[in-house]
Amino acid sequence: MSQKINVSIIGATGYAGLELIRLLQAHPYVKIQHLVSSSESGKKVSDVYPHLQGIIEKSFESLNTEEIAKNSDVVFLALPHMASQTIVPELIGKTKIIDLSADFRLTNLDHFETYYKQKHTCDHFIKNFQYGLSEIYKENIASADNVANPGCFALAMQLGLLPLKEKLTSVKIHAITGSSGSGKNPSEGTHHPIRSHNLKSYSIGNHRHLAEVMQSTELTENQIDFVPTSGPFVRGIHVTLFCDINVNTSEQEITDIYNQFYKNSPFVRIKKDIQVAEVVGSNYCDISVHKNNNTVIVQSTIDNLVKGASGNAVQCMNVMVGVDEITGLEFFSPMYP
Amino acid sequence: MSQKINVSIIGATGYAGLELIRLLQAHPYVKIQHLVSSSESGKKVSDVYPHLQGIIEKSFESLNTEEIAKNSDVVFLALPHMASQTIVPELIGKTKIIDLSADFRLTNLDHFETYYKQKHTCDHFIKNFQYGLSEIYKENIASADNVANPGCFALAMQLGLLPLKEKLTSVKIHAITGSSGSGKNPSEGTHHPIRSHNLKSYSIGNHRHLAEVMQSTELTENQIDFVPTSGPFVRGIHVTLFCDINVNTSEQEITDIYNQFYKNSPFVRIKKDIQVAEVVGSNYCDISVHKNNNTVIVQSTIDNLVKGASGNAVQCMNVMVGVDEITGLEFFSPMYP
Amino acid sequence: MSQKINVSIIGATGYAGLELIRLLQAHPYVKIQHLVSSSESGKKVSDVYPHLQGIIEKSFESLNTEEIAKNSDVVFLALPHMASQTIVPELIGKTKIIDLSADFRLTNLDHFETYYKQKHTCDHFIKNFQYGLSEIYKENIASADNVANPGCFALAMQLGLLPLKEKLTSVKIHAITGSSGSGKNPSEGTHHPIRSHNLKSYSIGNHRHLAEVMQSTELTENQIDFVPTSGPFVRGIHVTLFCDINVNTSEQEITDIYNQFYKNSPFVRIKKDIQVAEVVGSNYCDISVHKNNNTVIVQSTIDNLVKGASGNAVQCMNVMVGVDEITGLEFFSPMYP
Amino acid sequence: MSQKINVSIIGATGYAGLELIRLLQAHPYVKIQHLVSSSESGKKVSDVYPHLQGIIEKSFESLNTEEIAKNSDVVFLALPHMASQTIVPELIGKTKIIDLSADFRLTNLDHFETYYKQKHTCDHFIKNFQYGLSEIYKENIASADNVANPGCFALAMQLGLLPLKEKLTSVKIHAITGSSGSGKNPSEGTHHPIRSHNLKSYSIGNHRHLAEVMQSTELTENQIDFVPTSGPFVRGIHVTLFCDINVNTSEQEITDIYNQFYKNSPFVRIKKDIQVAEVVGSNYCDISVHKNNNTVIVQSTIDNLVKGASGNAVQCMNVMVGVDEITGLEFFSPMYP
Repeated sequence: MSQKINVSIIGATGYAGLELIRLLQAHPYVKIQHLVSSSESGKKVSDVYPHLQGIIEKSFESLNTEEIAKNSDVVFLALPHMASQTIVPELIGKTKIIDLSADFRLTNLDHFETYYKQKHTCDHFIKNFQYGLSEIYKENIASADNVANPGCFALAMQLGLLPLKEKLTSVKIHAITGSSGSGKNPSEGTHHPIRSHNLKSYSIGNHRHLAEVMQSTELTENQIDFVPTSGPFVRGIHVTLFCDINVNTSEQEITDIYNQFYKNSPFVRIKKDIQVAEVVGSNYCDISVHKNNNTVIVQSTIDNLVKGASGNAVQCMNVMVGVDEITGLEFFSPMYP
Repeated sequence: MSQKINVSIIGATGYAGLELIRLLQAHPYVKIQHLVSSSESGKKVSDVYPHLQGIIEKSFESLNTEEIAKNSDVVFLALPHMASQTIVPELIGKTKIIDLSADFRLTNLDHFETYYKQKHTCDHFIKNFQYGLSEIYKENIASADNVANPGCFALAMQLGLLPLKEKLTSVKIHAITGSSGSGKNPSEGTHHPIRSHNLKSYSIGNHRHLAEVMQSTELTENQIDFVPTSGPFVRGIHVTLFCDINVNTSEQEITDIYNQFYKNSPFVRIKKDIQVAEVVGSNYCDISVHKNNNTVIVQSTIDNLVKGASGNAVQCMNVMVGVDEITGLEFFSPMYP
Repeated sequence: MSQKINVSIIGATGYAGLELIRLLQAHPYVKIQHLVSSSESGKKVSDVYPHLQGIIEKSFESLNTEEIAKNSDVVFLALPHMASQTIVPELIGKTKIIDLSADFRLTNLDHFETYYKQKHTCDHFIKNFQYGLSEIYKENIASADNVANPGCFALAMQLGLLPLKEKLTSVKIHAITGSSGSGKNPSEGTHHPIRSHNLKSYSIGNHRHLAEVMQSTELTENQIDFVPTSGPFVRGIHVTLFCDINVNTSEQEITDIYNQFYKNSPFVRIKKDIQVAEVVGSNYCDISVHKNNNTVIVQSTIDNLVKGASGNAVQCMNVMVGVDEITGLEFFSPMYP
Repeated sequence: MSQKINVSIIGATGYAGLELIRLLQAHPYVKIQHLVSSSESGKKVSDVYPHLQGIIEKSFESLNTEEIAKNSDVVFLALPHMASQTIVPELIGKTKIIDLSADFRLTNLDHFETYYKQKHTCDHFIKNFQYGLSEIYKENIASADNVANPGCFALAMQLGLLPLKEKLTSVKIHAITGSSGSGKNPSEGTHHPIRSHNLKSYSIGNHRHLAEVMQSTELTENQIDFVPTSGPFVRGIHVTLFCDINVNTSEQEITDIYNQFYKNSPFVRIKKDIQVAEVVGSNYCDISVHKNNNTVIVQSTIDNLVKGASGNAVQCMNVMVGVDEITGLEFFSPMYP
């Protein structure tokens, strides 16, 4: 590729934004144009985030959609839910968009409003967005102008479930996330004195990411019991899926199904056993399969900020602009230990 | 109680032994007699474990069962599995015994040999031991001379399941343990560079503690899917139980069942939500109940070294010698934060 | 002691307040009367802090100094700096006061206003307070009605330095604290994603606790270089003191000085080497002494919430009311591991 | 650079070896030839280290120095101390060598034998090795065939001290390291239940890395007090240097000296304040300067496995083969959070 891909990030000071910077500054074809932050505009990036001293010489800017559209081949929206809905109308059609929020993930508007408890203000554009699960919808992403990047839990659950889609009758899920999933703003749930030796479940049975899992697996709410839990670590998601299936197969047959399903997916690794430490810092999703009694126990693990957010978004960008999907991401093997 | 309870600990240098010392040195009626350690005999306790300087002036001793039997009302065996089998014959009938190993927990000898993969050498004494789950078998413990203390996972799972015993048709379990559960000897699984940001499942479907759960719940192996996981924290167990039951009841009705079931159990607290940080350092088992779809989701949490081992053993001792079961343990409220 | 000590805590929802509750509920002579919290008044303690369910049945109350004075032998003030100054005038003379803030620690008013950058509004009462370092001023505390409890860093530094007081010419200090020292309110500095793998110094050369060290050691600001650092753990302070002294003595002679100096101090342990894990949860201050070149390297470690705050305050209470200073605190041996 | 740099790693299964793999697999000019491990030879790399599945297809090999010399432009020795001494004679002159052990760091043989307490068996080759501190000896490294990579503590201390070399009269040092510095083999010091909430000093005044600091700073043992401490985190070193200097200068003047000294050093960043979290995963050494009283307080921080070991080794390789010293390393900006 002789030409550069010009990219901008709106919401560049959040953890997803920072992780995009970490990944994109190493991407051989990318040139970062605008880093937009409403809260820090005008300040040097390295003054706000000194870990970037010597790496990024730019300053954060306030939002100027016209300028951004003009200078960008791809714009990443790394904003809180609902915020993209006011920006997308100004950018759509003028640049490719990859939205890391939930705003354009759900084709079923009712599901959005039920799970996010707010009125969508921009629902006529939902149909313009392709759900960004490259392992499943790669061809659609390749031809899409706008991509809705999956939620972190949602991605790890779907990659674990979709190879069984036709056979799945119900699933019980326990998924644990690191504290970086809560973002950069301190809160009770990320207060170090408590978080550092704790496990605490929340939103049992009604976590928002359920809606994405229902959409792709075609399971109903009644068929999924989802318990999300906060864990005492920074990066990573660890998912255990107790799957009931409608056929009688062996562990080996199911493993073969997974290997076959992901044989062209460079970032999915089927392993005998998985552990969070083996994916941290990388774009991998590791998956293991066990059969016990009649239950298929699938486990998956990702780095929530990479494959669960920014790494997957870069992977989608690669597909959208027509370069190998691993470009730039292959530098980041897991940081072990 | 005007008289002291003379106690000895065999296997006093392991984490269960150390935790017994921590708890018993605060017990108003207990006098510690012998601290036996084969590896450290002859050394001052506080030279081996300087955190006990100024607290315990004794030295570790080598095993002299005659002397111990003579001087002890209660002997705690805090030894690796299989080791109690050679000591019990020398002590039984001469002193009360509380065995923290698995050796005398299972009345079904086949289960022991299947799950522990070794031949029991002392099975004729199994019938002399009462399983030490005070919340369920308090009267039996009160009249027992020998108690087999439950396994840590096993205890947390059983306290979560037993109120539903009559209704339970199957259960899927994900349980996470802190690193102190692996004991004092360094191993790959407790190597700090990896353990400190990791989650890793093991023994999926065949963990030894299954046998205890089967014994009390009367579920078969086919009805339980148990995934144990190592977590990045020191103390605590967090259990999620996805229960299928044979009746249609509401969350409130089930909560009532739990409140009723444990109304005389001072160390079980029924809560809306549980978290590990709320039990660390204490003998509490916190339990929460949710109903989602048709699944009853029960969660329980304990400190694996207290309620999951030494605290429960002290509670059994209290019942066996006829003092209030909270004696000495009530000083230790959770260390939060 | 046949009579109960009636105590109240003002500021009971902060970490020092919670730790007072943890320690006092185990104290054989104490009866907790009022738990005051402006932010949570009217709520059940166990609703705000579910780890206390089954332990404390009271509710938090709003401040009623008259009622408190009437019902309390001892009142603990566990409030932010400056807040005690409005409450002390209403309580003083009517009950014993132990103030855990900095407001009455410094006899030199200028030092207070320099280091705390605020005008003292109640300085005429400073002389009514005895500095609460029981290892040094035990007799004064025994006859005091009001005690100012030391700062956490200040206490660990002073216990390390005072045996050398006559010989000390200057000291360079690096001290590291756990995150619980920052209190219960989430902030950037206690945000888990960053704090959990970080070390970060702050207030180099001008930390407030310097003033207390100057007061007791009689060193000037010019003779102390103090670097405080935030560490990635919850409880504990680890202090390294590089001491220049004006005499030529051996490591053994200095060790003897320390042993002699603390021979009647049950909570100070002189050890060859110290580590944070050996004091966590307990009221101990462990101290080691090394001589290297001409430098005396003293290290000390405490649990910042126990010996560095609430445990020391309980120790002072014991001395003030005339019971053995270890009463109630001796139950809490270090929680190791 | 049109040609590949062929590299081999001897001792590829240790943490320094693994980190070399992580960094080198992203290096645009490097081709990894042989990965030698005596303990795992014959096994697939990804079977031993599943985090490398899909990244490295090779197997570990046993040592064949002839083959390695033939196929390698550069050989990294990532072995325990003393082990390089038997391999260097077989490789020297046939390939470039970068030795990550201490065996060839010290030109003063007495210092080696004093600090490492063993007889050097290959001292005639010491003069053939250049000490690999690229920020100071870049030209020498450029023309060197063999480089001795600095120790992790030693590097962080030297980069903090050397700008003051002419002015320095003595220094007191407290340096804290993460657990990955202890390597891959579990030991008491890296046992998670203790390490995860602990700080513990060791080798006070006689740590081996002193010898390297003496060599480059020309300070004597009498002028350095060095306290190394184990910390409860995985990656990182945090150094505090209390420097006595022989001139009276301001904080600003000293900061200018540092900025000037490192103006051509892309991996050294002079900052107002430093923190470990801002360098983790990257090859940066961050340095801050404070003046307090007459003491210059310098702090430095590195990732012990990157700038403290493998990253610095790759930087040396770049200089030795004549490419920009940041090549391949610039992809790895700090992993924050």
